[in-house]
Amino acid sequence: MFETLELGRKLKRKDFNTAVLALRAKLLELQFQLEDADFPVIIIVSGVEGAGKGSVVHRLNEWMHPRLIQTHAFWDHSDEEEQRPYFWRFWRALPARGRIGIFFGSWYTQPILRAASGAITEAQLNLEMQRIEGFERMLTDDGALIIKLWFHLPAAVARDRLQADQLRELTEIELSENSSDEFMEGYNKLVRISEIGIRATDTGHSPWHLVEATDDNYRELSAGELVEQRLRARLAQAPAPAVIAPVRPANGDQPTVLDSVPLESALDGDEYHEQLEHYQQRLETLAWQARREQLACVAVFEGWDAAGKGSAIRRVTQSIDPRLYHLLQYAAPTDEETAHHYLWRFWRQLGRDGKFTLFDRSWYGRVLVERVEGFASDQQWQRAYSEINRFEEQLVDHGSVLLKFWLHISQEEQLERFELREQTPHKQHKITEEDWRNRDKWREYEEAVHDMVAHTSTNSAPWTLVAGNNKRYARIEILKRFCTALEDRLG
Amino acid sequence: MFETLELGRKLKRKDFNTAVLALRAKLLELQFQLEDADFPVIIIVSGVEGAGKGSVVHRLNEWMHPRLIQTHAFWDHSDEEEQRPYFWRFWRALPARGRIGIFFGSWYTQPILRAASGAITEAQLNLEMQRIEGFERMLTDDGALIIKLWFHLPAAVARDRLQADQLRELTEIELSENSSDEFMEGYNKLVRISEIGIRATDTGHSPWHLVEATDDNYRELSAGELVEQRLRARLAQAPAPAVIAPVRPANGDQPTVLDSVPLESALDGDEYHEQLEHYQQRLETLAWQARREQLACVAVFEGWDAAGKGSAIRRVTQSIDPRLYHLLQYAAPTDEETAHHYLWRFWRQLGRDGKFTLFDRSWYGRVLVERVEGFASDQQWQRAYSEINRFEEQLVDHGSVLLKFWLHISQEEQLERFELREQTPHKQHKITEEDWRNRDKWREYEEAVHDMVAHTSTNSAPWTLVAGNNKRYARIEILKRFCTALEDRLG
Repeated sequence: MFETLELGRKLKRKDFNTAVLALRAKLLELQFQLEDADFPVIIIVSGVEGAGKGSVVHRLNEWMHPRLIQTHAFWDHSDEEEQRPYFWRFWRALPARGRIGIFFGSWYTQPILRAASGAITEAQLNLEMQRIEGFERMLTDDGALIIKLWFHLPAAVARDRLQADQLRELTEIELSENSSDEFMEGYNKLVRISEIGIRATDTGHSPWHLVEATDDNYRELSAGELVEQRLRARLAQAPAPAVIAPVRPANGDQPTVLDSVPLESALDGDEYHEQLEHYQQRLETLAWQARREQLACVAVFEGWDAAGKGSAIRRVTQSIDPRLYHLLQYAAPTDEETAHHYLWRFWRQLGRDGKFTLFDRSWYGRVLVERVEGFASDQQWQRAYSEINRFEEQLVDHGSVLLKFWLHISQEEQLERFELREQTPHKQHKITEEDWRNRDKWREYEEAVHDMVAHTSTNSAPWTLVAGNNKRYARIEILKRFCTALEDRLG
Repeated sequence: MFETLELGRKLKRKDFNTAVLALRAKLLELQFQLEDADFPVIIIVSGVEGAGKGSVVHRLNEWMHPRLIQTHAFWDHSDEEEQRPYFWRFWRALPARGRIGIFFGSWYTQPILRAASGAITEAQLNLEMQRIEGFERMLTDDGALIIKLWFHLPAAVARDRLQADQLRELTEIELSENSSDEFMEGYNKLVRISEIGIRATDTGHSPWHLVEATDDNYRELSAGELVEQRLRARLAQAPAPAVIAPVRPANGDQPTVLDSVPLESALDGDEYHEQLEHYQQRLETLAWQARREQLACVAVFEGWDAAGKGSAIRRVTQSIDPRLYHLLQYAAPTDEETAHHYLWRFWRQLGRDGKFTLFDRSWYGRVLVERVEGFASDQQWQRAYSEINRFEEQLVDHGSVLLKFWLHISQEEQLERFELREQTPHKQHKITEEDWRNRDKWREYEEAVHDMVAHTSTNSAPWTLVAGNNKRYARIEILKRFCTALEDRLG
């Protein structure tokens, strides 16, 4: 594939200067249009070592308005980054809608270098590329424009610019000596691996643009023009046509997965207090052990209004040293959050290894309340299942323990609790008009829960459906699940 | 001072339960009032080891609504924290207006423990306490309510709860053996140092509340009631009366510091290109050296509209590898930024050691545009001078190189450039109605700049006033300043 990039394309200084003058005016105009548009732009600057990527980054910054652009380099990683799933570092740098982010180095850098140095196999590289493909599709589905630039140098030119030991230092490829032959061999390996990566991720939604990098003028003007063309085309693009709602079988009174929850389960007071003490002590010890072994635990709590989520969570947090957990409750997003993909507000709060991150309501809002209330389009909430699965897969792959609870109660039990709340002064704040409105949509929510479990209860991240009519029983079930999941992992 | 906390105060379980029932309802009600108020609440939970601080944090979380409260523990520090000034870790955790942040461990923890273990002297401790006092005053001036709780245990009780080696581990105080005597000596030292810290920071704007911690019930109810009382009082507080505008001498046509800038300075083209190449190469090398030696550089660019800030900054960034700098441009704040102290949006972007953070417009907006346009009250912009000085002092103390540039041009030069911009197609976007309006306020801005330099050009962080009528001269001056400042530090 790279032979098309070894043709000796070049550009005279004068022609370059003339072209740049026109290009800059166009880029600026497009940037101001972008400011009012509702999508972000990500420019990925990558390619072989010595190809002048830094110089391209300089040029793009020089040609565009700095207020609307931000450059992020990915090379030296902080411990805060290492202690979270790989993609966290990219999520924290993603530009908001209306802005451009230049990524100097990207999610491609690490897998390609690791494959070239032999740290991972080609099969693993392909798996990483599949993940990247999914990540990029998620962003473009949300409207993002991703412009991927790859800069190539013929091996002979690279050899003139770099020494073998520089190549080894930059890529960690093993080279037995600092000779021209060794250089060529290492370099060709890097190029071959890169080709695999590029091929696997050269998709319709985010294609690669390959640029011959030998001549500075040609390389830089090409980069600028590619950005200009892609941005112009994206701005001209009409909004996507509405997708037809999914065909779903008429399921009027069919049972859902919730009907299988044994709501009659109960615990009496004595048994409860004994077990509570037992499991809370176990969890306390396990939390410290997790801290020592740098194991992260992420737990999601969802459930019906008045299902007892809050008080169940409290039984968990009581057991854990406050230095070891973060409890997050989600209400309306801030404007910075609205300006990003909906998963961004969860990614940004993700705790480090050795900590518990507890989500009281979570990303599942997308396929529950946002679906039922129509805040998300059919297309948006339907694709959310795979987006969520991919997100959780990353948590699990990173080594985190992931727990997901749905607290279930019967419609009758909810009514009783609502009425009790209305009669108890210090609980009145917990019951609003909205709760009564949600209750009217019981059947719709039930279906949403059913579909959610069907799509997202995976082997590595199963849902725990908790029988909640008896609060004592539910609390112990949840504590027990925490303990066994952590013990499984901590041995 | 602690003898008042060794009286054996306690509370029966029954009385505690009754009191808590009433307290919880009141706390919740106040929290919902707070949600609509325009100030944040910071609860600092501190005290000696073994005093049950963790348990207090649990209780406060249990009694209040989790959506409006967030707990932050400060103990194990990430490299991202270590590589920025000490207070960065606290800034990133400060609650937004309407929210409560519980700080388990705080800005007090490190100085007190370091003084107790002998790592710093008492004089240094006092200096740290002065800094803390200034930091807290800045927050309360901005409206914040700071509730500082100190939990004390008599030495004999502490000895029963802890071993000498636990005390050593927790505090790093040197103890020669694991005996009761050694424990008492170490513990008394910690108490004595704590007293110094408490005394120095027990101020009207953020007083300390000392609580006897021996009895669990008494300790926890006291903490809750103190929070309730302070919060209630603060919510009932009428807005502060308007402060009278400062008396300023009539200075109609008196010269300002800007009149001393030698605007006639110029460079011809040849000399410029030669020096540009020279200083850019030097800066490139210095940036890599700074990276190796983990030196941070923070630079602020302010100046008149059309003074050539953008193009001067570009001459700087061209010299630095894009992986080594962040350029930040500030426009309107986001709603998350508005919900915090005005310095928060700058703190949050501060780069790590080894990096350059370049601010194109900065925190000085508070005493320039916000002052002149009336966006900040007289009280707000006047106290900003000391807030800024303290902020910059922290940057310098952390070891960063701090550079501040004001790009100065004459009124006539500005008019020429404005007219040129209006006539040049790709520069028209740079000139707006607002620029012309700002120009009409030239004298007011001139006074604001004069006062800014008078108040904030300190020995450790002086302003560089750059003669900008000749753009070439200005660019070289700025590059030169970067090089000499970095060379001074890097040797």
